[in-house]
Amino acid sequence: MKLLKNRILKDGEIITDQILRVDSFLNHQIDPELIDEIASEFCYKFSDVHFNKILTVESSGIAPAVMTGLKLSIPVIFAKKNKPSTIIENSYSATVHSYTKNSDYEISVSSKYIKRGDHILIIDDFLANGSASRALINIAEQGGAKIDGIGVVIEKGFQAGGKLLREMGYKIISLAIIESMTGNKIQFRD
Amino acid sequence: MKLLKNRILKDGEIITDQILRVDSFLNHQIDPELIDEIASEFCYKFSDVHFNKILTVESSGIAPAVMTGLKLSIPVIFAKKNKPSTIIENSYSATVHSYTKNSDYEISVSSKYIKRGDHILIIDDFLANGSASRALINIAEQGGAKIDGIGVVIEKGFQAGGKLLREMGYKIISLAIIESMTGNKIQFRD
Repeated sequence: MKLLKNRILKDGEIITDQILRVDSFLNHQIDPELIDEIASEFCYKFSDVHFNKILTVESSGIAPAVMTGLKLSIPVIFAKKNKPSTIIENSYSATVHSYTKNSDYEISVSSKYIKRGDHILIIDDFLANGSASRALINIAEQGGAKIDGIGVVIEKGFQAGGKLLREMGYKIISLAIIESMTGNKIQFRD
Repeated sequence: MKLLKNRILKDGEIITDQILRVDSFLNHQIDPELIDEIASEFCYKFSDVHFNKILTVESSGIAPAVMTGLKLSIPVIFAKKNKPSTIIENSYSATVHSYTKNSDYEISVSSKYIKRGDHILIIDDFLANGSASRALINIAEQGGAKIDGIGVVIEKGFQAGGKLLREMGYKIISLAIIESMTGNKIQFRD
């Protein structure tokens, strides 16, 4: 998605050759018009799939998920992050490993909102090692639901998550795939 | 806002006479079409004020804030919740007291995104004791910005926040004000 790639080149900050900061338009300050275009692109790229729910994880996934949900007229559920010790009744939980922070956290969704027969689109801001996506897939499966697509705003193509999830058979649409950030220069995959 | 009040009556769960759960449409599962209507109502009610930024706090404020930001063509900033021990460089922070959980937490915003001369609309899902709103006001003031309005989806009119903030002179628009929830029955303020 050209608009997004141009914005990453213009406003993204390369912190290390592994870490990109996009908090001026995606995950601290949000540009709603860009997110609206992102949502339109997800709808276009997934136009052959029928979803009845969107699943994301707080907080940075919420904006693109809810804009996409509006266009598809389907509800959006965001998984909540808990302290690992917190047990929430009647919910499905899974563990996410954050490589950036080198720590684990739990995410959970009330069992009321994931049902057998659901066809779910996962939306998230980043795909790197795929730990958050796999936790959301795990949660959906606990509720008997099916993941029919994964929409990602920015994929770090040099990390393993995208390859792994594609090999598992998931349809993944990443609107910008970064091949490398070495030498303070962002290279996108075609 | 009639649509919202009807939805609260239909799907809100009264947990105690102080606690209302609206996680089927507002703060766990989100109904994007309702949020879109909520955003339109904020734009209509604040049509006499010119804002250049929206400020909210993760996570439940993000959906109404970003939908409103799209309609007003202005950026949205969401304050991040931190552990009280975490000090983030170059940011403005304030403490929020959660009466529900009886604990304190810090919220912070990068100083890059709040500037002198900004005219800010605060958007949040709930207004109860006003602790989160006052923390957002505090953060805006640290950056020399002005709060020109506060838009709230659901105000608990039987708690002190709304009265306090109105007495401080803030223009507050609450789309549904709950007067009481005693006897398992929701009474709205006219």
